[in-house]
Amino acid sequence: MMRFNQPSIILVEPQLAENVGMSARAMMNCGLYDLRLVHPREDHLSEKAISASSGAEKILQNAKIFSTTEEAIADLEQIYATTARRRDMIKPVETASYAAQNMTQALSQDIRCGILFGPERTGLHNDDVCLANAIIEIPLNPEHCSLNLSQAVLLVGYEWYKRQIEAPDIQFVTNKTSLADKEKVLQFLKYFEDKLDNCGNFRQSEKHERMIINLRNIFTRNQLTLQELNTLYGIINYLDRHRPD
Amino acid sequence: MMRFNQPSIILVEPQLAENVGMSARAMMNCGLYDLRLVHPREDHLSEKAISASSGAEKILQNAKIFSTTEEAIADLEQIYATTARRRDMIKPVETASYAAQNMTQALSQDIRCGILFGPERTGLHNDDVCLANAIIEIPLNPEHCSLNLSQAVLLVGYEWYKRQIEAPDIQFVTNKTSLADKEKVLQFLKYFEDKLDNCGNFRQSEKHERMIINLRNIFTRNQLTLQELNTLYGIINYLDRHRPD
Repeated sequence: MMRFNQPSIILVEPQLAENVGMSARAMMNCGLYDLRLVHPREDHLSEKAISASSGAEKILQNAKIFSTTEEAIADLEQIYATTARRRDMIKPVETASYAAQNMTQALSQDIRCGILFGPERTGLHNDDVCLANAIIEIPLNPEHCSLNLSQAVLLVGYEWYKRQIEAPDIQFVTNKTSLADKEKVLQFLKYFEDKLDNCGNFRQSEKHERMIINLRNIFTRNQLTLQELNTLYGIINYLDRHRPD
Repeated sequence: MMRFNQPSIILVEPQLAENVGMSARAMMNCGLYDLRLVHPREDHLSEKAISASSGAEKILQNAKIFSTTEEAIADLEQIYATTARRRDMIKPVETASYAAQNMTQALSQDIRCGILFGPERTGLHNDDVCLANAIIEIPLNPEHCSLNLSQAVLLVGYEWYKRQIEAPDIQFVTNKTSLADKEKVLQFLKYFEDKLDNCGNFRQSEKHERMIINLRNIFTRNQLTLQELNTLYGIINYLDRHRPD
């Protein structure tokens, strides 16, 4: 379960067991497994916490408990503090995305990293913030930037996880069918246009040319699959067989 | 309150008022204000919902209620469906980040966008997914990718918000003081080294040269501020005045 190539999540004096559980869930969403708790007020293995973790109870069971932040970070080498508001601290302030990039690079050099999150009501105490190498500030609407503890864990974890994978920006998912090549698409268009020509006065219409161009644009822009082409053939034939008299 | 240069958030058949409230809070975190609810099971203006919105009750009060998804999206032109698992749908699948970029571009051309989120227990029904231009899949740990409704809203909204602002990756926050220029840093180092030379046999130490280099590295790597330099002068002078006999 323990993986050292990832940052530790350190919750400093969390108040509610439910928030600890939801933070564990958010960690698991982001492939993070090392949870450390500094002087939690409630039992992190209570039914409330386990239920809120929604399947991430292993993270709660493996959580390490410390009585001070200093002990919780003792074996780590690079610490980030998350804060929602600016403090009177002379410190680099990084976006979650940039910090994630830095941590990924640090961890690849075996520099062990940890991220501090403060108590729900107040956020981190300055005594804890000043232990950190840098501050993470999540860019959010300044009119309303207060986040639930587990949501802060989620956003920071999400940025970290994004750096660990290579999700393609966009995929065209065709499942069991595959894309129709252009020959098949043009065959279909010819078939469609012939059927239209068979109907009344389509060929004579002065808009005929424009309509053909529009039809071709609709169906070529669309990246049709073979399955979809078959559906379209079926519909045209159905209409052909069931014309109104 | 209504801003048309942003995507509408459409919750389809949300089950719990609390989740609607928390989604409103997440929307406000991300500067999103247009909430649409399709056939919500509970009252979105209940005390539970308002309390969960944690200050975002305006969004709940302005929410529009529809009985079908079709009605909820009728005035929009580009629709995204969020799904946690792959469906049997032939559709482009985009990351939240890429979709945010596309929506930002679309909105700048006055193309109105909306994002569909499904009911808590089941996610979106296929009948709703097939109304969308594309699917948003949030890249998360495949071993545990189930998200609370409001967390899905938060992550998608966060990616959108990030595109609207230009948060610098890193800022060195010095508050009221400012960075010391190199002349002041070197003056301080000289002062420090002179003080050390006055102490016992520092100058004679064979490690003297290496120690000077290390000291210079420590203090030049550090981007000291004027305030911090003053603190360091103060400490050196204090030690100088209070030597052990």
